[in-house]
Order: sequence, then C-alpha cells, then structure tokens
Amino acid sequence: MHAYRSHTCADLTAADAGETVRLSGWVHRVRDHGGVLFVDLRDHYGMTQVLADSDSPAFSAMEKLRSETVIRIDGRVKLRDASLINTKLPTGEIEVYATDLEVLGPADELPLPVFGDQDYPEETRLTYRFLDLRRESLHDNIMLRSKVIRSLRNRMWDTGFTEFQTPIITASSPEGARDFLVPSRLHPGKFYALPQAPQQFKQLIMVAGFDRYFQIAPCFRDEDPRADRSPTDFYQLDVEMSFVTQEDVFAAVQPVIQGVFEEFGGGRPVDTDWPLIPYAESMLKYGSDKPDLRNPIEMQVVSDHFRGSGFAIFAKLLEQDGTEIRAIPAPTGGSRKFADRMNAFAQREGLPGMGYILWRKAEDGSTEAAGPVAKNIGPERTEAIRQQLGLDEGDAAFFLGGKPETFEAVAGRARNEIGKELGLTEEHQFKFAWIVDFPMYEKTDEGKIDFSHNPFSMPQGGMEALSADPLAVKGYQYDLACNGYELVSGAIRNHKPEIMFKAFELAGYPASEVENRFGGMVKAFKYGAPPHGGCAAGIDRIVMLLADEANIREVIMFPMNQRAEDLMMAAPSEPSNEQMRELRLRVLPKE
Amino acid sequence: MHAYRSHTCADLTAADAGETVRLSGWVHRVRDHGGVLFVDLRDHYGMTQVLADSDSPAFSAMEKLRSETVIRIDGRVKLRDASLINTKLPTGEIEVYATDLEVLGPADELPLPVFGDQDYPEETRLTYRFLDLRRESLHDNIMLRSKVIRSLRNRMWDTGFTEFQTPIITASSPEGARDFLVPSRLHPGKFYALPQAPQQFKQLIMVAGFDRYFQIAPCFRDEDPRADRSPTDFYQLDVEMSFVTQEDVFAAVQPVIQGVFEEFGGGRPVDTDWPLIPYAESMLKYGSDKPDLRNPIEMQVVSDHFRGSGFAIFAKLLEQDGTEIRAIPAPTGGSRKFADRMNAFAQREGLPGMGYILWRKAEDGSTEAAGPVAKNIGPERTEAIRQQLGLDEGDAAFFLGGKPETFEAVAGRARNEIGKELGLTEEHQFKFAWIVDFPMYEKTDEGKIDFSHNPFSMPQGGMEALSADPLAVKGYQYDLACNGYELVSGAIRNHKPEIMFKAFELAGYPASEVENRFGGMVKAFKYGAPPHGGCAAGIDRIVMLLADEANIREVIMFPMNQRAEDLMMAAPSEPSNEQMRELRLRVLPKE
Repeated sequence: MHAYRSHTCADLTAADAGETVRLSGWVHRVRDHGGVLFVDLRDHYGMTQVLADSDSPAFSAMEKLRSETVIRIDGRVKLRDASLINTKLPTGEIEVYATDLEVLGPADELPLPVFGDQDYPEETRLTYRFLDLRRESLHDNIMLRSKVIRSLRNRMWDTGFTEFQTPIITASSPEGARDFLVPSRLHPGKFYALPQAPQQFKQLIMVAGFDRYFQIAPCFRDEDPRADRSPTDFYQLDVEMSFVTQEDVFAAVQPVIQGVFEEFGGGRPVDTDWPLIPYAESMLKYGSDKPDLRNPIEMQVVSDHFRGSGFAIFAKLLEQDGTEIRAIPAPTGGSRKFADRMNAFAQREGLPGMGYILWRKAEDGSTEAAGPVAKNIGPERTEAIRQQLGLDEGDAAFFLGGKPETFEAVAGRARNEIGKELGLTEEHQFKFAWIVDFPMYEKTDEGKIDFSHNPFSMPQGGMEALSADPLAVKGYQYDLACNGYELVSGAIRNHKPEIMFKAFELAGYPASEVENRFGGMVKAFKYGAPPHGGCAAGIDRIVMLLADEANIREVIMFPMNQRAEDLMMAAPSEPSNEQMRELRLRVLPKE
Repeated sequence: MHAYRSHTCADLTAADAGETVRLSGWVHRVRDHGGVLFVDLRDHYGMTQVLADSDSPAFSAMEKLRSETVIRIDGRVKLRDASLINTKLPTGEIEVYATDLEVLGPADELPLPVFGDQDYPEETRLTYRFLDLRRESLHDNIMLRSKVIRSLRNRMWDTGFTEFQTPIITASSPEGARDFLVPSRLHPGKFYALPQAPQQFKQLIMVAGFDRYFQIAPCFRDEDPRADRSPTDFYQLDVEMSFVTQEDVFAAVQPVIQGVFEEFGGGRPVDTDWPLIPYAESMLKYGSDKPDLRNPIEMQVVSDHFRGSGFAIFAKLLEQDGTEIRAIPAPTGGSRKFADRMNAFAQREGLPGMGYILWRKAEDGSTEAAGPVAKNIGPERTEAIRQQLGLDEGDAAFFLGGKPETFEAVAGRARNEIGKELGLTEEHQFKFAWIVDFPMYEKTDEGKIDFSHNPFSMPQGGMEALSADPLAVKGYQYDLACNGYELVSGAIRNHKPEIMFKAFELAGYPASEVENRFGGMVKAFKYGAPPHGGCAAGIDRIVMLLADEANIREVIMFPMNQRAEDLMMAAPSEPSNEQMRELRLRVLPKE
C-alpha cells in the first residue's frame, strides 16, 4: 500500500464499504462521544469521518490529537447508519474505523483556528497565512483564482493569441506610477526597474511581427496601499493585436471576459449586450467613466429650466461660462425622509446640500411638487423638469450645478447611493459597457496641458487633429466598465513616430525627452511598425468580482499587508553589509 | 471591408482566385522583373506574392518600397501559371494583383536585414531585437517556446495540479545564489528580494493544505552570465506535491516531460524507459551526475589490474587510501591517431596525458595490445582488462587514476569526447535518467561539512542517519538528466523541524540562524506539515534542447546580453535624484 494514502479524503463512498483504506490529512475536529472518538479528517479534496473506540489500537493515539495535526490512518470503510448520513459531504454515507494511526506532522497550539468562521485580525491572518489558507472560504477563493486564470488563458489561446513572457528585470516603463528599482551589481550605480506593465514590450512584440499577443503578466507599481490594490505586484491579462481597429479589440476581448463571468459567476446573470458609451456621455449620465449599469438611473442636463429662474443659486451659477445644472432622477425616492438622507450624504461629501424636488400626493389627491427648489422656480418649470425626467408621483429628483468637472464625481456617487438606497440597483448580476472616446489631454490644476490617460494612444484624426485645440482631441482609448469598476483599459496605439512626437510636444515633452524615456520603442517604430492596439484586464479585480470580495487580500495566496510588508516571511528586511558593498550602496540616515 | 485585411498572408489558395482581397504585412522582398514588380508580403502567419505592372494604380507606390515597410494592399487573387507554382508555400498557387497600396509603417534603412540568413554580431541583434525577431528561425523558436509552456501547463492541469502564483517582491529565499534586491520606499533602508525560486512558498502552499501545486515560475538569480544561463530572470516549471514519496514525483513528472519532448521533438526518438541511477553509480560510470545516455560508454573500475603492476604511476597511486583507476572503454577507437587525439584532449584539460591500450591486428594476424600501459603491465593483465571491458580488436581503453573526486569530471568529459569523436553517441534523440541518492553533505575545500545540494531535503534514514557519519548520509534528492543536461532537480522535503535543525547543525548552522533565515517556513512546520516533495524543471533548457540551440538567447524573446544589459531598452540606467532620495540611498564612488 502507498506510504500515505490509498484514497483522498473526498473519495470514499458507500461502494467502498468493507474496504481497507489508508488516508492522510489534517485533523479538522475531534469529538469525543463517550468512548468513541470521531475525527473529521481533511485534505485538499474533502473531509472523511474517522472513528475509533477503545477496542481500536488507534484509540490512545487518537485521544491525544490536537487540531491541525497531520496524520495517516489505516482503517476499514463502514456504512453509516441511515440516520447519520451527511448528505452535504460526498463521503457522507461512510465513515472509516481506524485500526492504525501515525502522526506525520504534529501541531502546536494554534494562533488562529481553522475550524469555524471566527473573524481574526488581519495581522494574525497574514502572519499565519498558511493556517488562514486552510480555511474553506479562502481556500475556495484561491482555487477560484487559479481556475479563472486558466480559463482566461485557454480562451485566449483558443482564439488565436499566443502567450509570450516579457522581461521582469528591465528598464523603467513609465506608466504614471512609481517604479520599483533593482540595483545592478555588475553595473554599480545603475538600476533596473520592474515593469509597471509590459506596455512597451507588447508594442515591440507587434513591431517584431507577432500578431496576437497575450500574457498573464505580473506588474509592479510602488504605490501607496489601498484595500483594492496590492502595494507591490499584481496581475493583468495583457493583450495586444496588430492590424486592428478598436472594434476588433472589443470583438476579441468580449467573449473571453464574458465567458469567464458566465463560467465562474455562480449563475449570476451576465449581460451579453455591451454598449459603447462615449466618455462624455458616461460622465454626464453616470457621473463616472466606470458606470455601474446595474443602476438604471441616468442623469440629465436641466440647465434651461433653471436659467433665469427664481432659484437664485442655480440661476446665478448659470451666468458663468461652462456651468450646467444636472438632475439625478430618483424613482420611488419621493419622501422627505429620503431627501434628508441624501442631504446628509451630500454633507458627508463636503457639499452644503443637494437641491431636490419631491413629487407626492397632495391632500386633494392631485400630484404636488414639494421642496424649496420647486417653490422657487414655480410650477411650470417644475412640471417641465418632471416631464423631461419622466418622473411621477412618489419620485424625486436631485440637482447639482456648477462646472461639470467640479461636481461630476459627487453626482456619480450620489447616483450610486440613490440606486442602492432605493433598491433600484439590481445586485447579483454583471453589466458591462465599453467607455470610448476618452479625451487625449486634460488641463492640470496648474493650467497646463497633459495627457489625461495613456500617452501611447493614437489620437482620433491623427496629425490633423493635433493641430487644433488639444482639449478637443479624443483618443482611440477605451475602458471596460463592469458593475462600477474599471475591468479593462486599452487603446489603439500611436505607431507613427511623427504623430507621437507631436502628441508629446503638446503635453510639454520635447522630442529629446521622448527619445530618452521611450527610446527603444520610438526607434522600433522607424523600421516598419504595424497599426496595433490592445488592452489589459485586471485579474485581481475580476476574481474579486467573481468571489464577491471587497478586499484584494482575499483573492491572493500570499499578500502583503497595507504597509507593504510580508509578515510571514519578514520582508522587507535589512540587507547584509556584503550585499550593500557589492551594490556600492549606502542607506542615508533619516533627515 | 476591414481597414487592414480581409485575409492573412497565409490564407489565400487557388479556391480564392478571382476574389478581391485586402492584405497587410511587411515587405519581405521586392523584385523588379522588367516592368512587373513582385513583393513578397509577410505577416505572422505566412507570405503572399503580390505583383503590379505599370497598368496598376499601385505601381508607382510599389516602386518606392523599402524592405520591412508595413503596407496594406488591395488586389485581385490570380492563379499562378503552373510553372510558377511554389509548392513550399501554402499560398504558392496564387498571387495577388495589387490595385491599391497604402504605406502603414515606413521603414528606414535597416541595420540588420530580415530577409536572408546572414549572421550578425549579437550586439546588433540585441539592439534591434524587434528586427531580429522577424527572422524566421528566431520567430519559430519563440513560438515553440510559447507552445512548449502551454503544453507543460495543460499537462500539469490535466493530471490534477493547480497553478498558483507566488510573490515576486518578497523576502530572500536563499538558494545558494545571489539575490536581486529591491529597496523599499515605505521602509527606507530595508530591502525586498526577488525569489531565486519559489522554494519556501511552494512548501508553504503544501503546509496550507493545497495538494498539488505547479507554476511556470519566474526565478531571479544575480549570477555571472554564461551562454546557457540568463543573467537575470529565467523560468522553471515548479512542482510540489503532498503525501508523496519520490516515486510519486517521478510518476507525475515523467509523462509531462516525456509528452512535451514527444510533442515538440520533431520526430526525434524519445526514450520512455527512464532508469533510476544512484549518484555514486552515475559518477563512476559516466563521470557526471547528468550523464548523456545517448553515449553507450560506461566506465569501470580497473584498479585490481594495476595494483602492484609494472605501470609504476598507477601502482604507486593505488598505495594511497581512497584512490582508484578507472577505464573508459572506446570501442572502434583502437588507432594510434585516435589515441593521440585523446591525449591532446587530456592536455587541454590540464592533465599530462591519459594512459591507453589499443587492441589491433598484429602482422601475424593475431590481436595485439599496443601502447606503453600494455607494455608495462604485461599481456596477462592487459588481457584481463580487455575481457572485463568486453573490448575487441580495433578498440581502445583509456585510463585515469587518483582520488575519484579529482578526476571524475575530466573522465566524464573524456567519455563525452570519445563518444562524439567515434560516432558512438547517437545524436537526434532524447535519453533520460533519474539520478537519485545524492549525498546530503560534502567536505568543502576548507575541510568543513556543508550541504552538497538542497538543504531542505529529507535525509534518508531521518534523525537516526544524522547521528552517524554525515558524509554517508544520502538525501531523498534527485535530478533528471537528459542528453547530458540537468533538466529537473527536486527532493522530498524535510518537513520535521527537529530533523531540519539537526541537519543544519551538522552543516554548521546554529538554530538561531535557521530561525532567522527560514523563519516563516520553520514556523509553519510547527502547525501540521504534511510530508511533501517536488521538483523544478528548467524551461529555457527544455526549449533549447527542443529547438536544438546552444545559446539561451535564441529561445528568449527579449534577453539581456552577457553583461546583463538590455541594449534595446537601455537597462540598467542611472536613477533620478528623486528616486534615490525617496529610497534614501546613495551610490558610493568606486574604491
């Protein structure tokens, strides 16, 4: 017989009754039923009930077992009494009467129990991650993650993509975040960088003539930690294709992402109709470039109804250039109580409050509009607003005004809040949209023109467009939004050096700096570059959505804590003097 | 029609004759056949012949095309004249008469041609890697690599393994080589390390209760460069299993490795009988722990024939303790010329020469033994040696003597040389062997006891064996040799803290240092560790064998040069002052 097991802890069924078997696993739980000891023996695959009475040679060893000890038992498979069958376990019809027991790996007193669902402080969980991972929900999340990645990979191969590995110890690939640096020993004083993304390499792969690239790519950004972001490395499904327009990228990516959500969504409906929403429209309707379309609320511009009206705040506002009033319709939200709740929300967001109109039943049975806004603008304008928004008795509308960029984000959060509070947002489903036509440039707080997203994107209209107002230039740049998250981001790339230099010039980067920072790629573009584009999908995020987890550390095997420390392995740590000498580095004292 | 292509450059066949098509790709070659221009248009998938005569609106644009320009052409598919059919190309029955041509990506004068097979200096090839990669053989190697990795992955999943990703920015994992360090910005003065291998993590995964792990794992070792080793990152198929003996590991790994060699070996025979050879036997017979079994030569100990013989050098040698004389049989090598060649080899290796005996036809037709050794030891001993080695007229034997550790490696190289020179080694096939029973410890040059291989291996005989002579202790440690290379290395791990502390103590490491260096893992072993073991297979090496390449840079998309520089991306490079300030680091001047 095998040294450790004839079966796993998920294998045995009624058909095995009478067999002599050998099992190995962890002692999940020991129960003493007066002279009979029961052990739930657990391995990766499942659980089997093992028992011994005082007639068994294994009894005395079993008495001493501590939870999470690793044991090997030999025994005979017995059918359970009908009344004791556990239909929840695949092995629930049988138990194993132990005749021999060997401790393979003893266990000290546990700092964190595996059995049971008690919540434990995250520091404890991370320090003893190897115990935490034995718990069912985390074990399941990690298995889910592996399966999701496998499925993504197979779907990419099956549609003609090839996975290529790009360098991890490489040059800085400026993606807007901070690089992790790696000092070079052979070239002291010089540093490598870990890639923030394989952006330049995947573009070089296209220039090298490979047609459809993907990679489950580790990415490294030295960013300040956040609940939904790893402070060190994270993974993306990185994709690039040659000779494509953005529609080709959408057509390639949708089946892969949709397929994975259908496969692992646990039956939650997955929308198959993925609308294309221009960035400007998304900001207007949803106050976000990653709208949650499970929420049916769409905002509208209602400036005309307030222009010159008796609601002085808005009327005054509208006299300034570039201002707007937008309404957030709130179907079924037409109560003072709800209006108060939303005002409290607005105040938490740092606003004085939100204007609103409630439509409710008047004492005479007709519909009346209530609230200070309605009073100030009068019944005619109020009614016009109601009609524009398609609202009715029992509904409400909230208003925000000013320059859109100053209130759009808050409006978006108010929309989320209203959708959730009123139960309008249908949870437990997945809704997707491609957000397109992102602006190439934005004005920074200092009034300068800078890239608003990826500087490598092809501007719509090419060189010609770059000769007019930069702020009006849109890029062939797109995001995939799902349930309020950005799941994918991508672009058709700028593969023409002259357009690239011009695009960077508009953002204030002289040609010399472009050559300096992206020299390898710019040089490559001079020797026959194909039109190309692609995207990257956040794998941690996909798994978080599928596992319904809000914390990224629930879907990563060995995560860092929020201070970017590995508590289990004790990283980072002090280098040795010899290491520092070899690298010719010195750590400076704190100032 | 699609903006860039209706077909790829490998799609069109005679069945498409008459169709209007659009193709995009690189100008592989332009030929001018007096008024008719031919372009071989190339993309990732293949090649299509495009032509234009002066009647075509595309003619004048085509006249100006430089090699490697990216173009889009529209045209009509025409059958080629029967005499012009190219049976080597899938598209060889047709050509496309171009009616429109657009340059999508112009090309400057090339520093490195894509068409043709000229050899170019490696520095040029690496600086313009994106051009080098367009060449057929490198393109094919990289595609092979991707397919091999895919196949390895699928084979692992299909046999019940799950791929888990382990951290890349982590703690030092001492594997005997030098770590790459990553300075921490959030914890100035502290450093992360890139993993030399996921050794500790995969063991922790077993302790965490996952049963069968694998990973196509990037590994990082700051080693001095070598032709067959990447100076920065390389990939291994990393494997670990719980509740296994070493035979279980062999049974799991052989089908995967063998399967990949059968799938991608291009018809070269793949041996399915993988012998288990103890380390000591391998060193004796083959002078190597990674023997090339395509070479049938097996060395033998022939000390007894020399003891007290007239061949004074060996006879004297044998008076010292621990010395041996070994013979390398050389069937068909029985000529003075060959003996001289081998003597030259020995001198290149720093030896004064190698003793030899030739068996050749004497003038009287009988078999005579020639050479100074035969003369000195006399006909009886010479004949006994011939019989022991099973040699005959026309054969030779070479001899080396001393303490085995002083000449084993040279003997192994001599065996290789003899096998190759005499054509005994059957190239173009793959032969495997598991080398087992490696010694746990060795004596260093300073006479100290140290680990000879992996310190995490379980010593055979456990705690008891560690109480006797350390140099006699064997580990459950194994390598897979293929054609003279170490392809896989692995072990059953030491999962018992007390045996681990003892094993380290014998090598001179106090418990405190073990706790300090491997604290995470040692701690984990105290809370229920399963017996486990595994291995790691070198992926770059597998692809090199399959692609029949001797240089690792021929099977990596973007390799470093031998000075660990990325010439294309210019890495490593000087950090910015701001980066150094954030990391609180200073580079010291050269001493």
